[in-house]
Amino acid sequence: MTEYRSVTADVVADLAAILGERNVSCDPDKLIAYSLDEVQGPPWKESCRADVVVFPEKTEDVATLARYANENKIPLTARGAGTGLSGGAVPARRGIVVSFEKMNRIIELDRDNLTVTVEPGVVTAEINKAAADAGLLYAGDPCSGDASFIGGNVAENAGGNKVVKYGPTGSHVLALEAVLADGRVTWFGGKRRKDVTGYDFVHLLVGSEGTLALITKIILKLLPLPGEVVDLLVPFPDVASAVRFVPRIVTEGKILPASVEFMDHRSISLTERYLNRKLPYSDAGAHLIIQLEGNDRENMADEYERIGDLCLAHGALEVFVADNRNSRDRLWKARKSITESVWAFHPGKNVNEDVVVPTSAVPELMEQVQAITARHGSDYVAFGHIGDGNMHLTIAPDRDRPDREAVLKAIQADIYDVVKGLGGTLTGEHGVGLKRRDQVGLFLDEAQIDLIRRVKLAFDPNNILNPDKIVPWK
Amino acid sequence: MTEYRSVTADVVADLAAILGERNVSCDPDKLIAYSLDEVQGPPWKESCRADVVVFPEKTEDVATLARYANENKIPLTARGAGTGLSGGAVPARRGIVVSFEKMNRIIELDRDNLTVTVEPGVVTAEINKAAADAGLLYAGDPCSGDASFIGGNVAENAGGNKVVKYGPTGSHVLALEAVLADGRVTWFGGKRRKDVTGYDFVHLLVGSEGTLALITKIILKLLPLPGEVVDLLVPFPDVASAVRFVPRIVTEGKILPASVEFMDHRSISLTERYLNRKLPYSDAGAHLIIQLEGNDRENMADEYERIGDLCLAHGALEVFVADNRNSRDRLWKARKSITESVWAFHPGKNVNEDVVVPTSAVPELMEQVQAITARHGSDYVAFGHIGDGNMHLTIAPDRDRPDREAVLKAIQADIYDVVKGLGGTLTGEHGVGLKRRDQVGLFLDEAQIDLIRRVKLAFDPNNILNPDKIVPWK
Repeated sequence: MTEYRSVTADVVADLAAILGERNVSCDPDKLIAYSLDEVQGPPWKESCRADVVVFPEKTEDVATLARYANENKIPLTARGAGTGLSGGAVPARRGIVVSFEKMNRIIELDRDNLTVTVEPGVVTAEINKAAADAGLLYAGDPCSGDASFIGGNVAENAGGNKVVKYGPTGSHVLALEAVLADGRVTWFGGKRRKDVTGYDFVHLLVGSEGTLALITKIILKLLPLPGEVVDLLVPFPDVASAVRFVPRIVTEGKILPASVEFMDHRSISLTERYLNRKLPYSDAGAHLIIQLEGNDRENMADEYERIGDLCLAHGALEVFVADNRNSRDRLWKARKSITESVWAFHPGKNVNEDVVVPTSAVPELMEQVQAITARHGSDYVAFGHIGDGNMHLTIAPDRDRPDREAVLKAIQADIYDVVKGLGGTLTGEHGVGLKRRDQVGLFLDEAQIDLIRRVKLAFDPNNILNPDKIVPWK
Repeated sequence: MTEYRSVTADVVADLAAILGERNVSCDPDKLIAYSLDEVQGPPWKESCRADVVVFPEKTEDVATLARYANENKIPLTARGAGTGLSGGAVPARRGIVVSFEKMNRIIELDRDNLTVTVEPGVVTAEINKAAADAGLLYAGDPCSGDASFIGGNVAENAGGNKVVKYGPTGSHVLALEAVLADGRVTWFGGKRRKDVTGYDFVHLLVGSEGTLALITKIILKLLPLPGEVVDLLVPFPDVASAVRFVPRIVTEGKILPASVEFMDHRSISLTERYLNRKLPYSDAGAHLIIQLEGNDRENMADEYERIGDLCLAHGALEVFVADNRNSRDRLWKARKSITESVWAFHPGKNVNEDVVVPTSAVPELMEQVQAITARHGSDYVAFGHIGDGNMHLTIAPDRDRPDREAVLKAIQADIYDVVKGLGGTLTGEHGVGLKRRDQVGLFLDEAQIDLIRRVKLAFDPNNILNPDKIVPWK
């Protein structure tokens, strides 16, 4: 295991000299707050606490900081808004937490090249808004987008609601300004739609959870803003009929929707209670949200009628059309509140999974989850991005069961077996981080784990950048 | 510089024992043929010749071969159809050339998951056809697609005619079965639309030119096949008006076309001569091809009329609509024949570039290229994927000039300066390979070159996989 230098008063003084007093904090409350994320359950253990939090204001600050930390062998853990769900921003080996909240400028929106250049601390929704104000679309749409930082989205390769059509965050990333572990600053990529000059380090950095470099600027791709967007809310009598319908949208409907989201009966009930409002057909077994986009109003109307008819022909109970901003916002407010609703009514430690399987395997996955939880006598909630096979599962056995810990472990193991058998994997969009690090070996073989370690050390020979993440480190 | 073991008669005998006599060749003609690609000019020098060519039939063959080569420190250079344009498949340090021509099966087309699983030796056009036969689209469309292998497309991250809308080859790659340098076989990715379990090695391997691993199976994403495709052939009076029109398709036309291709007057003339048929308005200064896709015939007609009107409002001389298979095929036959036409009439050594710039910089690039070539008194031809800023330039000074070599060098240097100044880079889709290896340092900084070497050695510690490519190696 790598030995690191402790953060002494001398180190804090050095940091203050480098970054300015105002950008360095050892306030005990802050040290705790900046060491946590939104993983539910008991908080990350005491050994995963920042010794100091720093707030760089510009790339040069980050470069000087990295050079210092590298020379002194002190861990540097980059942090966005702390909305992560895998401990990616948690300082597993203590040291310096680098909050990017002061690097929060939208530097340029380039209408000619359809790009936006941002600092990592910009809130995702602000980018969506800036693009829309310019008549363009930034297609990244994580459910946490009103709070998350774009830097965190890039570091985790955040998914969200529009992956079916537009891909995850990485699909929108054209270029990254990065500070390497030794403090050198470099640009990977540029405002170019194509680039085969050397390896694709842009997309290696995307999703690498801050373990390879510190990202200080991001150039994102924008798209033409669709003139018309319609959401269909479609209740089905049961989970099976809803999930089995999904592939038909593409194979029979012949279109690629922007979103296909799934909410089971329990998700809907919890969200109704949490938001204190009724959703239509809330007693249905499951709901789909299907989002369609286009430019021509009439053509869109034809399209959603056609897809609506297809839903009804395959067992949908009804098709609700949300075709104005107000009704669409209400619908998505419900969808995006599910996670918080589940936490509110199932607080503390549960099994919270982010598994992903080939889309055709989702029906089988859902049947198996039902069987596994029934076998262990546990409640569960399921929702997620069914259009891309990514399901969020919360397994919450009764809080008073004496065998609760064992049951959680057993259910998780059973689910992983099923996911693996179906050609799926451990995490679709939340990341491995610290939370799933010790399960990676169930899904990646020894050769791959070995390559992750070697590539990490090729970028970061002293192992100072967000150490102890993604794969087990001795 | 790495020392390699020579390929002696013993080594050839070992290879025959591993792969079978029929899969090993030392035929002198073959050794030459399998050491070349389509880079024009004097052939690759004698030191870049295969000592032996092998033809594995299955993954296990490749694994055994890699284990043997790694233990014996013999270079292994993977080869597709040899249609490359950068020396990527040329054995720079001699050794074993691995032709994938016998691994040429389409293993499975999965309609439910919208994927196709192929071996690397499948001809790209066969995949397009298999997908279309199933009512689906494989959106990879390099100009060499009738001959190139998909393995080569993946290794070079081939671009082509549909990058504007669908991205380059890498955008379609979901998973790779790879043989690592030491012979271990592993799968990166799967039939999953999302995956953040570990680093994104799938897209690191894409475009890595066979330097990191040997790819033995590929899972590609398919899309719904658009019901209607229309190509507009649009002559403009001059280069400037054509290139300046391109961004308006998105900004004013509000659509993302599938293709926007550019052909200057010289490209059109050479292609007319080569194919011995006239193209409409062939005396125009430049032509664009704009491809639109949709599902509804009427809506499409509205759309192409709208885009056509926009063309005419911005100086187009005429708008020809190719809306049936026959007229579309004729048009694309012309476009895809330009490269061969240019070679036919400008044989031998010229400057053949594949530069890419931000799309808004294409007008400036074209003006500068005109000025540079005029200054040096040289002829040139320009065509390419203007929608994504990727231009193919052939600079062909008079063959009899005594200063020809010096002029070629000077023009290339001037063009690179301009490209760099415009935020562009060395190669958009043809790759660095051997041809551009010594120019990489003009576009990548020392930190990045260093990282390329380190990541290469993380994957391939003995440096046996396609050595001496992409960056200079001491």
